[in-house]
Amino acid sequence: MTNKFVPVEKLRAFAVSVLRKAGTDVVSAEGSARALAHASLLGVDSHGFRLLPVYVEFLRTGLIKRTPAMNRQDPKPAVAIIDADGGLGHAPAYAAAAAACELARTNGIGLGLVKRTSHFGAAGAYAMAMAEAGFMGIAMCNSGALVALFDGTKPFHGTDPIAFAAPATNSVGAKHNPFLLDMATSSISWNRVSLAKTLGRQLPFDVAMNQAGGFTLDPEAVTMLAPLGGREFGYKGAGLAGMIELLCAVLNGTRFGFELDTTVHADVDVGNVMIAISPGQSMSSEMATKRVGHYLQTLANHSTATKPVFAAGGPQWISRDERMAKGIPLPDALERELQSLARSMSIDWPPS
Amino acid sequence: MTNKFVPVEKLRAFAVSVLRKAGTDVVSAEGSARALAHASLLGVDSHGFRLLPVYVEFLRTGLIKRTPAMNRQDPKPAVAIIDADGGLGHAPAYAAAAAACELARTNGIGLGLVKRTSHFGAAGAYAMAMAEAGFMGIAMCNSGALVALFDGTKPFHGTDPIAFAAPATNSVGAKHNPFLLDMATSSISWNRVSLAKTLGRQLPFDVAMNQAGGFTLDPEAVTMLAPLGGREFGYKGAGLAGMIELLCAVLNGTRFGFELDTTVHADVDVGNVMIAISPGQSMSSEMATKRVGHYLQTLANHSTATKPVFAAGGPQWISRDERMAKGIPLPDALERELQSLARSMSIDWPPS
Repeated sequence: MTNKFVPVEKLRAFAVSVLRKAGTDVVSAEGSARALAHASLLGVDSHGFRLLPVYVEFLRTGLIKRTPAMNRQDPKPAVAIIDADGGLGHAPAYAAAAAACELARTNGIGLGLVKRTSHFGAAGAYAMAMAEAGFMGIAMCNSGALVALFDGTKPFHGTDPIAFAAPATNSVGAKHNPFLLDMATSSISWNRVSLAKTLGRQLPFDVAMNQAGGFTLDPEAVTMLAPLGGREFGYKGAGLAGMIELLCAVLNGTRFGFELDTTVHADVDVGNVMIAISPGQSMSSEMATKRVGHYLQTLANHSTATKPVFAAGGPQWISRDERMAKGIPLPDALERELQSLARSMSIDWPPS
Repeated sequence: MTNKFVPVEKLRAFAVSVLRKAGTDVVSAEGSARALAHASLLGVDSHGFRLLPVYVEFLRTGLIKRTPAMNRQDPKPAVAIIDADGGLGHAPAYAAAAAACELARTNGIGLGLVKRTSHFGAAGAYAMAMAEAGFMGIAMCNSGALVALFDGTKPFHGTDPIAFAAPATNSVGAKHNPFLLDMATSSISWNRVSLAKTLGRQLPFDVAMNQAGGFTLDPEAVTMLAPLGGREFGYKGAGLAGMIELLCAVLNGTRFGFELDTTVHADVDVGNVMIAISPGQSMSSEMATKRVGHYLQTLANHSTATKPVFAAGGPQWISRDERMAKGIPLPDALERELQSLARSMSIDWPPS
């Protein structure tokens, strides 16, 4: 497999052109391109530019609305609800993250909700947006049933991700990479099952289940994922997924994972929850972000010569630095797919 | 091992008497007794009345202040900070949970912080208090370093628990048991290591580590715990612990786990974070709590004749119902300890 490398900004502009040609409005196209760029830059390729043709297909078929009438209502002083109106999920998620920060600036904490939305890509994109605005941010989304309950034998929860980011500075106040957790509440993603199939490899223990609800190592036999914690501690992963389902679906009046069509990316009735918190509650925000930096630096000191130790987000900053320098790697198959998409829309490829 | 069974209300009153005799004020004594009763009733014995002699010892030695000057400040419209002043951790945690609910009633979301506090028992007690007040509630606490990082070889995070509760009603609006998640971000508790030692049993895979930072099954060799997710997915448990450390320590201006003395229960510089959210954001609160009930009932239908499936909290309600009927079971050793405590304070045993 050879990779072609394309600068992230060119791919981002390409994504905007493609989505605009597919009929979306500017806000939708730019929001999605920004989220795809975030994921591809940080090495989260499952949620990166790979998804562009998928979204285009859902826009073509009308499963996702091209020009949604996105709107915001603030039912309470510290709450904003974005109605995504069934459009692409990224722009409304960014809008909710920004609204949560704006409300947190005044109130100390802010809640940004998104209802009637579709797949929003990597949850970390929105936690990161809140950290870039100077806030600690939590981002969550529910999704179609794909993960079994603890002791369960049928899919019930979605992979239901949670992301958290906290802005950091070093001891002299210079910008430091933030803490950035972005995790599904299943042990692995569906994407990893597909990859194991392609490579003819076994899966790890306790992460996936067959039709009968038994654990399996065989990717061909997998019909659902297991919650984080596996056979013995899966009640924790399932419990976290339950928390995320209840927050996202109940607060937004959208459907639970088990009520959704599992054609995950096209489902336009999932909900997002964004919580922004001002770090400067007990000290100045400057001091608070230094404390986050102190945590990250102390943690990094646990690395040994043979074994690096990373805080959440650590491996992603390495990817980001490499990819900022070299560009985003496009495997052959993905390049062919993007090229064909470009040709069908009369857009230049490679992006200039 | 024979058990004596004592009604929870008698043990709760006994705990108040003991703590008052140990010199605490009424608010501190009643808060702690309430939290211990919660844990013992729900079967979380590690955090139940077993801890009473431990707290008394810390009060005697002065590590925990008997009559703290607890106070509340509201730095922002949706934030309350309780300064626990180094007293018992339960009353200030309940105060922060109540404050978060009060602020959520007005603002839609409320943040209750606790600084300069000590061990607060089971995190679920405070999430549950928020659910009983009609709110979805998240409760978190940091604690002394006892859990390794992912790929780490030394303790770094505390067991750093997170709890979440959501109030529920059934389809005709009658009260239903809430959803109640209460989990440490390590796979197992230290208590379980001690139990394995006593019983001469091996530990599960991937949950505990020896001095050299290798995984071990031998409880005698354990010097630290591993994060939830174990050898392969422990970056998720460690990431969640990091989120909790950063929220609890930075927002409260208290210490990180690695800065704390690991005599966990006595340390009076941990922080709590309580987030209350009004469930009725996109529909009435009545409808929202029915949706939570619908989630719980649909989940319960996944049980089979041979294998019950529980939502978070499910096994706890069974314990609660049994213990409300039969009383709290006191193993011989605990009964002797409580009896001796009673005798030293001239308090009646068994509690009348």
